This record gives sequence, structure tokens and C-alpha cells, in this order.
Amino acid sequence: RCHQHSVAMLDIPFPPFCAFLGSLGLLCVALVGTWCQHWRGGFSLDGGSRTFNWHPVLMVTGLVVLYGAAALVYRVPNTWSGPKLPWKLLHGGLALGSFVLTVLGLAAVFRFHNSNGTPNMYSLHSWMGLGTVLLFSCQWAVGFGTFLLPWAPAWLRQLYKPIHVFFGSTILMLSVASCVSGINEKLFFSLKNGTAQYKLLPAEAVFANTLGILILLFGVLVVGALARPSWKRPDSDSLDSRQ
Amino acid sequence: RCHQHSVAMLDIPFPPFCAFLGSLGLLCVALVGTWCQHWRGGFSLDGGSRTFNWHPVLMVTGLVVLYGAAALVYRVPNTWSGPKLPWKLLHGGLALGSFVLTVLGLAAVFRFHNSNGTPNMYSLHSWMGLGTVLLFSCQWAVGFGTFLLPWAPAWLRQLYKPIHVFFGSTILMLSVASCVSGINEKLFFSLKNGTAQYKLLPAEAVFANTLGILILLFGVLVVGALARPSWKRPDSDSLDSRQ
Repeated sequence: RCHQHSVAMLDIPFPPFCAFLGSLGLLCVALVGTWCQHWRGGFSLDGGSRTFNWHPVLMVTGLVVLYGAAALVYRVPNTWSGPKLPWKLLHGGLALGSFVLTVLGLAAVFRFHNSNGTPNMYSLHSWMGLGTVLLFSCQWAVGFGTFLLPWAPAWLRQLYKPIHVFFGSTILMLSVASCVSGINEKLFFSLKNGTAQYKLLPAEAVFANTLGILILLFGVLVVGALARPSWKRPDSDSLDSRQ
Repeated sequence: RCHQHSVAMLDIPFPPFCAFLGSLGLLCVALVGTWCQHWRGGFSLDGGSRTFNWHPVLMVTGLVVLYGAAALVYRVPNTWSGPKLPWKLLHGGLALGSFVLTVLGLAAVFRFHNSNGTPNMYSLHSWMGLGTVLLFSCQWAVGFGTFLLPWAPAWLRQLYKPIHVFFGSTILMLSVASCVSGINEKLFFSLKNGTAQYKLLPAEAVFANTLGILILLFGVLVVGALARPSWKRPDSDSLDSRQ
């Protein structure tokens, strides 16, 4: 009895968890926007550091939060019955929105570097981040070609589905790791002088470090939710080649 | 037929995958050692930068490679039959070894900071890294108390097992993200002057960036192997409360 009671306590239903996760995602977007607006001078398209500021905002919004929403579509119980196509379109559409924001986020940092004569693609952050975006573009294109084109054969869908699921979680882990290394790097770049040095932990550093920890928490919770057996579409193996 | 053939191709057995993963882990250890020995001046215990060099080597060896080996013990098919206790002791022993190396790795960076008057625990890398180690210490202690103490009740083992499994993968993801942000940060610290600036991508930067990408690959493959249903101990749910 004690055991059953305790197991039941752990078996949170998906909807309240999802509401919490949505709030956490919105909080991350609000915090990264506040960081760039309040401490880093706001936003512009002039090629200066205010152009760079679009980079963290678009990456956190696109490659983490919207990506997480796209990944979790099939964990919403409403998607488990009735026609699957509308949910596939929602999943692919959210992922496409995430991809567009991500590409704009890349454009922001390349434009900033090019306007300032800074080389592109030298740091480990940039290698990991661009690798993540390239994996994401393959994931979207192969997912579209396999699951949305009506003439894709059922055996191909069955074959590719576990690969798509694996890379879905992997890309999110990589994008979270990219965000964290990027925030860390940006704080070392920006907090250099006087009492505002990073190592003296000024308010901006506490704020942005907290943002990084919340992004990690968001990523871990999404990957955990994706892996949780009881939240998966029932009989997903037999249904995955339908529609 | 085509489908079955393709699925069979994807169904790699665990042992050759494990051999590849072991080689990749050893390569990561060799590369981080080479980086610190060849480019960062080698190792000592004098409190200077050669004391710091123990930090990346011990963290990659302990919190990534040895941790990954500990996590994968129950994926070795030999562990699926016969008494479970020896494998539990191996799992807990490897994890303890990983933890000891990790604590020594922390001691190295604290000693370096303290000898040089640098504050501790200000960067996002340090927050994430220490959080990872604290989670790992809880994971080990609760795992020991639940799975190795013979008087722990079976219902508690069943209850805690999925939590232990979830945090097992989560801690590895966090430790890989910590390593990557740490390598990125160290390269910005170290490569500052003349033709050796990080942004000019000298040989050391290519070498250490490659190390970071290989650590990411190792982490992704271990987490993927842990999640793969066909590599899990058969009937693990009914067996998990046995000694």
C-alpha cells in the first residue's frame, strides 16, 4: 500500500507538468530579453553590439523554448486519437518556426562579427552551435520527407522514427549546452572593467548565470518528459507508420 | 523484406558499440592530457597554472569517461543472468572512482584560485559544474543506501530506480555541458596574445575544440545507449528489487 501510494505520487500527469514547463520556457525568454535590454544596451540592426543582442534572444527562444514545444507535441494526450496529420503539421510547423528563429539568430552574430572585423567560427561554442543547427536542418528536412510526404513508404517511416526521436533529444541537449557556453563566453567578454568584472559577480552576472541554470533545467525537463514511458503515445510503434 | 533488412542493419549489438565507445573515451582522456602537457605547461601541485591543469584532466577522466563506464555496466549482457550483487558493486565502485577523481578535480581548481587570489564560483561554468557534482554526490549516496544496503525495502528500490536512471543520464549531460563550457572559457583565458589569439584559431584552439566535440559525441552516445530499449536488461522492472 505504501509502495503503491508513493508510486502514484510520482506519476504526475502531463498537463500540469506541461504548464510548468511552458512557464519556465517563457521565463527563460523574458530573462534573456531583459538581460540584453537592461544590461547589454537593447536591440538594433546596425551591426554593432545591439545587433549581436538578437543572437542570445533568438537562440533561446527558437532553438530551446520553441524547439522544446515542438518536441513535446505528441506527449499531449489529445494527439493520441483521431487523425494524426494535423498534429504532424503542428509539430513540423513549430519546428520550422524554431528553425527560422535559429537562422535569424545565426545571421545576427555573423553580421555583428563581419561589421566589426571579428573572425567567425573559431570558438568551441561556435563549432558546437553551428553543428547543432546543421543537425537540426537535417532533422527537419528528413523528417519532412519521411513523415509528411504522402508517398514515403511505411517501412521507411518505421525505420527512421527511432532515429528522428533520438536526434530530437540530442539536438536539444546540444542546443542547451551551446546556450550555456555562449552565456558564459559573453559574460567573460562583457564584464571586464572595474567593479563590474565577472569574477566580482556583479548583479548582471548573477542574473545571466541564473538564466543559464534555468535553460539547463528546461532542457533536462523536456528531455526527461520525452523519455518518460507513461507519457508516450500508446502503441506508438504500431501507429507510427499511419497517415 | 527490405524493411526487415534495414532494421536489422540498425540493430548494432552492444559489445562492438561499447568497444568503440571505450576507444572514444580513452581518446578524450589522451587528448585532454596532451592539451595540458603540450600546450599548457604540464602538471604540478605548486598552486600555479600547472596545478589548474589537473582540473580538466580529472574532470574529463572522472566525470565523463569513468562515469560513462559506470552508467553502462548494466548494458553488458553478461550482467543479465546470475547474481546481481557483483555487478552492483562494480557499478557503485566505478561511480565511486569517478566521484573521487571529480573531487580531486575540484580541489585542483580551488587550490589554483586560492593560490592566485582569484575568486571561486563566479562563472556560469562553475555554477553548473558544482551543481553537477552535488547532484552526483546525492545520486551516489541515495543509490548506495537504496540498492546496496541489504535492509532497504523492495518497494523503495522499485520507486527510486526510475529516478536514479533519470538522474544518471541527466548528470552525464550536465557534466558534458560543463566540460564544453570549461574548455571554451579556458581557451579564451589562455589564447590572448599575438598570433596565438583564440580568434585566429591557432593549432591549440583546433586541438581543444576537437576535444570538446569528441566529449560531446561521447556523452551523446552514452545517453543514447542508456535509452536504447533493446540494450536494457530484459524484465528489469521485475528484477530491479532483487539483490
